Amino acid sequence: MTSLTCLERFKQLAEERSSLLCVGLDPDPERLPEPVPKSIAGIGGFLLKIVEATREHAIAFKPNFAFFEALGPEGMSLLQALIREIRTHTPVIGDAKRGDVGPTADRYAHALFKIFGCDATTVTPYQGEDAVRPFLTYRDRLVFVLGLTSNPGASDFQLPSLFRDVVRKVRQWNDHGNAGLVVGATRPEQVREIRELSGPMPFLVPGVGAQGGSLEATLRDAEDGSGLPCLINASRSILYASSGANYAEAAAHAAQGLREQISRAKSRGSASP
Amino acid sequence: MTSLTCLERFKQLAEERSSLLCVGLDPDPERLPEPVPKSIAGIGGFLLKIVEATREHAIAFKPNFAFFEALGPEGMSLLQALIREIRTHTPVIGDAKRGDVGPTADRYAHALFKIFGCDATTVTPYQGEDAVRPFLTYRDRLVFVLGLTSNPGASDFQLPSLFRDVVRKVRQWNDHGNAGLVVGATRPEQVREIRELSGPMPFLVPGVGAQGGSLEATLRDAEDGSGLPCLINASRSILYASSGANYAEAAAHAAQGLREQISRAKSRGSASP
Repeated sequence: MTSLTCLERFKQLAEERSSLLCVGLDPDPERLPEPVPKSIAGIGGFLLKIVEATREHAIAFKPNFAFFEALGPEGMSLLQALIREIRTHTPVIGDAKRGDVGPTADRYAHALFKIFGCDATTVTPYQGEDAVRPFLTYRDRLVFVLGLTSNPGASDFQLPSLFRDVVRKVRQWNDHGNAGLVVGATRPEQVREIRELSGPMPFLVPGVGAQGGSLEATLRDAEDGSGLPCLINASRSILYASSGANYAEAAAHAAQGLREQISRAKSRGSASP
Repeated sequence: MTSLTCLERFKQLAEERSSLLCVGLDPDPERLPEPVPKSIAGIGGFLLKIVEATREHAIAFKPNFAFFEALGPEGMSLLQALIREIRTHTPVIGDAKRGDVGPTADRYAHALFKIFGCDATTVTPYQGEDAVRPFLTYRDRLVFVLGLTSNPGASDFQLPSLFRDVVRKVRQWNDHGNAGLVVGATRPEQVREIRELSGPMPFLVPGVGAQGGSLEATLRDAEDGSGLPCLINASRSILYASSGANYAEAAAHAAQGLREQISRAKSRGSASP
């Protein structure tokens, strides 16, 4: 790896690869393409092919820890090896949604950044400052705190107003400029407000593909003048683009399509009055 | 394992062992007793000795996933083996604080209950109903949702009122009678209110030892007439009771002491007007 911070590396790649795309890696044995063996080795080979096929279109890969933990300790070994491989060319967001009291958060941060070697991670804010700070002490990494998520349950607690408190606090805690926010694309009406509250920091935006958020509005409202307002994540729509032997080409095609869709939405957004 | 649910098993053991004690397992290489080798094997041997020394005083063991993840995939293998061993005599609460959108929560629940074999777990409510429900579908297990935690950061979001919304929702979601709440002992003034809102369900209470909560008030205010109002967790005060070769005896002594303290506090609490 270079000595750039994760955020600097994202900005560099966003230019080099003309992309804001993050490819999520959620290996579900029930959804693997037909020809892929449902074994650790099979899943590993599948993911590496997806990564190779899509890397020119992506500025990040986001393995979802749950899907690897569900494969047991061998799945965690696979995850560790996979991250090591991906980082040789593209930063890795370890999507783990961890959150616990200070001394435990410290161990989770160590696990994610030092043992698994992630460049960035996702963190749950429910337990407050001492649950988030230990991650932020890794100044060269990036920490996406859950702000307003894209799932139906977001309306249970995050809405109508908790997400605002979280965004304000994350801004306060951002001493090292390495905080970001998870902001669901299914709620475009709130993206602008979250940006006003957050100031410049990257958003990680899930829910554009399968969950059908509005890309153009999200990109316009997330703009922060920093060169990297947001990363747009897609997981299943790329990973499982085909259930046949052509899954890697199909994934590449889906990733390229979404990258171009992002570019068009971006230029339309900036061209609009 | 028997065919009792986790909650039934806790109640049975609470009677058999006259205890409400949960022993937390947070293996920190920096805090291991002097004679314990700082290796996976050394840590495994240490934890097994602690478990053997304290099991007659405890109704649950609570391995903290962060401390095992920080040991890498080998640490996860150790955790899996340790849980298998402990479950032959005592239920295991996998303290993982997971929480994510529905399909991901489904994978986390599978990992915790099926792959690691935990009898119970802890869950973070920030993402709402679809993040919690997949855990609750395992009817024979027990799911402790974070209510009001014992750390300083609890005042960032949980207070002044979010924890009430969470408690109300958990009660609504408790179709199978297998939900519980994490309620910090450092906030005894809120325990009674949480009990009024929750109705009968077990609380998992951290923060009695190191963090200095009030045991007697907590036990009195958590009472729900179910026979198992709460589990009282202690981790470091038992695990690291001695840094010398006598660590197992010291742990047994600390566990016994806390068990007796709980009994005394309970009888004082029920004797008071």
